[in-house]
Amino acid sequence: MNDRFLAIDWGTTNRRVYLLDRAGSVLETFRDDRGVLAVGPGGFADEVAAIRARMGDWPVVAAGMVGSQRGWALVPYLPCPAGADQIAGALHEVAPRTWIVPGLSDPRGDVMRGEEVQLLGAVHAGLAPADALLCQPGTHCKWARMADGAVASFSTSMTGEMFALLKQHSLLAEFLGGPVADGPAFRAGAAASADPALLTALFGVRAAALLGLRAVEDSAAHASGLLIGSDVRGAGVAAGSDVFLLADPMLGALYTAAIAQCGGRAHLVDSHAAFVAGIAQIWSLVRDR
Amino acid sequence: MNDRFLAIDWGTTNRRVYLLDRAGSVLETFRDDRGVLAVGPGGFADEVAAIRARMGDWPVVAAGMVGSQRGWALVPYLPCPAGADQIAGALHEVAPRTWIVPGLSDPRGDVMRGEEVQLLGAVHAGLAPADALLCQPGTHCKWARMADGAVASFSTSMTGEMFALLKQHSLLAEFLGGPVADGPAFRAGAAASADPALLTALFGVRAAALLGLRAVEDSAAHASGLLIGSDVRGAGVAAGSDVFLLADPMLGALYTAAIAQCGGRAHLVDSHAAFVAGIAQIWSLVRDR
Repeated sequence: MNDRFLAIDWGTTNRRVYLLDRAGSVLETFRDDRGVLAVGPGGFADEVAAIRARMGDWPVVAAGMVGSQRGWALVPYLPCPAGADQIAGALHEVAPRTWIVPGLSDPRGDVMRGEEVQLLGAVHAGLAPADALLCQPGTHCKWARMADGAVASFSTSMTGEMFALLKQHSLLAEFLGGPVADGPAFRAGAAASADPALLTALFGVRAAALLGLRAVEDSAAHASGLLIGSDVRGAGVAAGSDVFLLADPMLGALYTAAIAQCGGRAHLVDSHAAFVAGIAQIWSLVRDR
Repeated sequence: MNDRFLAIDWGTTNRRVYLLDRAGSVLETFRDDRGVLAVGPGGFADEVAAIRARMGDWPVVAAGMVGSQRGWALVPYLPCPAGADQIAGALHEVAPRTWIVPGLSDPRGDVMRGEEVQLLGAVHAGLAPADALLCQPGTHCKWARMADGAVASFSTSMTGEMFALLKQHSLLAEFLGGPVADGPAFRAGAAASADPALLTALFGVRAAALLGLRAVEDSAAHASGLLIGSDVRGAGVAAGSDVFLLADPMLGALYTAAIAQCGGRAHLVDSHAAFVAGIAQIWSLVRDR
């Protein structure tokens, strides 16, 4: 019975499970914190059995860090360029009627697991053009160049992780307790990121607070502007660039502002809808073979 | 009796104490871990009394974080440009016959405490020209532009702290256990730092290891090359630049290699000799007034 299937976006700390019908419509979904690290080695088969007991005994297709060394099984990266056909042809059957989507590698030296499903789905669902620059902000921000609906190349910047490192562990920590939102302090930071000396600009956050050049409560927004501005410029966004953003509202607003400051235009894409469209497309290519 | 004096280079985690004669020669010196954080508020007078009991009841001149909010007393920053005359005129008498050297600020948004003594001393002792670019690598790397023997301007990059953050707390941590030394991996990282997308290049350290593009044991040297190369380029080092380095042998070798890769020339300066020359010069301007 292949009328329905279960799709799992199974990341490091969270997972989201969908029951989808043949057309790719969501019949039921839930999200919890049973990510790869919480499940641990040996626990994945039981997890999937519990999901089937709850949502029905359907085929399962999982994507994300579940396919990494810390996950259920290490599924080799598929090198770019790669489209839905290549991915569907490389699904890893980890257990009966249970598949893991391979992550992608960029031979220049980059990797992703899980984001590829959103990227392909965004184009497949018509949320982004077949030839476009897509951006997935977060702990590790992905920038993907799509060509003819496939992932042509991509790069990752550790923008979100860097902000967290600075806020939690650095000498700047005591200055980074303020709010982060689009506004003058964020935009000043994004503008200052045009100077490539990022390590100097970051130290300057502390110095400016000590010297009274900037209110301490503006420091976090300024630092965020520096990092996101540096990320956007490093990705080559310039006047006239269109960027399709798969982001939550907060990061979406920050990246939209930083992209606009470089003269580009941001277009927000629903990342959950993109995942569903992508996994349904991949499954449709496998289902009946 | 002003024939001799005690100079203290009193930093956050360590201090070095010198007994100097009128000519600025070192009669006796020791280093220990009684830095500002270990001494704590209220403990400084006793520390100085203990030093005098050990080395003689001489005037004391201290520099470094001892003049910060966490130190003995908050001594206001002296704005650049500033030379030995300005600093000598702004010593803070924190107790009888006991002075703290003010730190410097760059009005563009930067601060230092303690490094200014080395900078002035390097020029005063003839270890660096009166008009030169000086660099003090470390947790927070200082780049100072000297003009006519005074500190004209400076900037700080958090190069060393960033490496430590990445090694201790980031997703890269597991890849950064290898040795850091000048060699092919370090130089490749320094060359790659010509691309300003530092946040992407750093993520690439992990990706390259996962993909087998670079040996894991080379990752730390490569990341160090990225950070130090970015630091050197951000400071404007280019073909024909002369940089006077106040560094320990390990960092001195790394910065020398990165500076050479940019076409510059590094000149190593003994930072302890520079501190002694600087504090003796400052004291000579105060002593007899």
